[in-house]
Amino acid sequence: VTVATAREAEALAPVCRDILIAYPLLGQSKLNRVIQLDPFPGRLTIAVDSLVALGEVAEAARSAGRDVGVLIELDVGMKRTGVPTIEEAVALAAEASNKTGVRYDGVMFYPGHIRSHIDAQEEAVRDVRAYLVSVREALDGAGLAPRVVSGGATPTVWRSHEMGVTEVRAGTIVFNDRTTVLTGACDWHDCAYSVLATVISTAVSGQAVIDAGSKALSKEELRAAGGGYGVVHDRRDIIVKALSEEHGVLDLSATAWRPAIGERVRIIPNHVCVSMNLHETVWAMLGDEVVGCWPVAARGRAVQRPRSV
Amino acid sequence: VTVATAREAEALAPVCRDILIAYPLLGQSKLNRVIQLDPFPGRLTIAVDSLVALGEVAEAARSAGRDVGVLIELDVGMKRTGVPTIEEAVALAAEASNKTGVRYDGVMFYPGHIRSHIDAQEEAVRDVRAYLVSVREALDGAGLAPRVVSGGATPTVWRSHEMGVTEVRAGTIVFNDRTTVLTGACDWHDCAYSVLATVISTAVSGQAVIDAGSKALSKEELRAAGGGYGVVHDRRDIIVKALSEEHGVLDLSATAWRPAIGERVRIIPNHVCVSMNLHETVWAMLGDEVVGCWPVAARGRAVQRPRSV
Repeated sequence: VTVATAREAEALAPVCRDILIAYPLLGQSKLNRVIQLDPFPGRLTIAVDSLVALGEVAEAARSAGRDVGVLIELDVGMKRTGVPTIEEAVALAAEASNKTGVRYDGVMFYPGHIRSHIDAQEEAVRDVRAYLVSVREALDGAGLAPRVVSGGATPTVWRSHEMGVTEVRAGTIVFNDRTTVLTGACDWHDCAYSVLATVISTAVSGQAVIDAGSKALSKEELRAAGGGYGVVHDRRDIIVKALSEEHGVLDLSATAWRPAIGERVRIIPNHVCVSMNLHETVWAMLGDEVVGCWPVAARGRAVQRPRSV
Repeated sequence: VTVATAREAEALAPVCRDILIAYPLLGQSKLNRVIQLDPFPGRLTIAVDSLVALGEVAEAARSAGRDVGVLIELDVGMKRTGVPTIEEAVALAAEASNKTGVRYDGVMFYPGHIRSHIDAQEEAVRDVRAYLVSVREALDGAGLAPRVVSGGATPTVWRSHEMGVTEVRAGTIVFNDRTTVLTGACDWHDCAYSVLATVISTAVSGQAVIDAGSKALSKEELRAAGGGYGVVHDRRDIIVKALSEEHGVLDLSATAWRPAIGERVRIIPNHVCVSMNLHETVWAMLGDEVVGCWPVAARGRAVQRPRSV
């Protein structure tokens, strides 16, 4: 499993064999926590993109008397994190392979800059592959051949193998959402997550207001045709056109359907990850039957204690 | 106190004398919950903008053998909820005053359409006042003079009295945020909430990446000069220019400051309400001293149990 926070690692350690923290964790207390919970020694890997982050992992690993795997994060075009050049990738990999406490395992990347439709990704995917081939050649030449090349994202999930990876990370594909459908990476019937809302007002004509606002759906506007913040599951001509904290406004201008106050609708949000993160529990359904209530275990725990001075 | 959900009412009932649920609560189970917890009988008020919502409150109140106050919600220009005409306001008030179980108390409104700077609100506030005067005259003429006129919002907080209200509701002013500063309703030193983040990567030049993403700050883009999702507390020329779920990207193009990896920064988000809602706890500070850890009690509980069929 791939996670981004110590808390997520803690929540998933009891049920997962391998944990990749695809994020440069900093701070000895946080690193000690994740190293101690390593369920099977040797199965914890942490991604780093700087000497500082690498040094922090090594220090925590040494004081715990453990080895922790590291991957060097590459920037393949998103310009968020990751070392931006081949030279820096080789230099950081060399440092990792020489440091006690860490085990150099390879590289990772997140091609989050590719957000186009699956039919229009050819060139961008080819560029990523070409860059990765160059990185591998340089690492091989330095005696640092990567055992792991971990990469991928949901929009490009069906082309991950073309990039030359040894493991695929595509988080949104577990549940899917409106954005994933619109990139072509899944179909509407693949969307396994929806927010059940109640129509609470039809006072203003041409719209209906539901009790799912930005605190239920998350306010990530679709930057593409259609716009808005989500769609009604079985009436996809109806967009959530506006969101306040506790109000969602359904645009009824493209439909003759007029819901009654009290009627329930299922909303598929633009982005499932940030919507699920807003809820303490989710109801698991099999067909029309409620079969479980799952806690969303790792949410809401990112806050840091300030240091008193 | 003013709340929008049953869960918020439950969290605050033990410490509040009066509770206004400024939201049309639907469903007998939810209404029964809030009526039962009414800390001081007669102190619970619910806003309604439809016969359906009014009927639901009356039914729950009657079966509990209690009286529940109602306010008629008016739409004064936001076009979200609230009855849109004076005639409908009078008609719904008349229904409320005739129904057993409910006590007609007056009207409420939320002028959320006024988002301009405090120096440019004159005309919009005058329009709201003029409309409220007309509503009052019509209600007075029908023998339905409102005891309560509840209204207000944070951008217009310093002009609430000009609208002719008997109580002011201005939620964001409790903590303030970047948006409130930019409307002129508060100053930077009035911002009592910030998100403490750590710089985790400086690999890409011209920026620094922090570990506060959309799951810590919330992704509400500023639709005004400056843009972005928040600012650094003591370096306000530095904007959070991009947000992923766990990454925030600080734009360093307007500053010579280059943070070290591991350095901590305080971010003032665009919208405090949705940011605080993402955290399980907040640390309370007095000056530089940590003086408490507060649970964010009412968050994450909006999810409805689906009915099995």
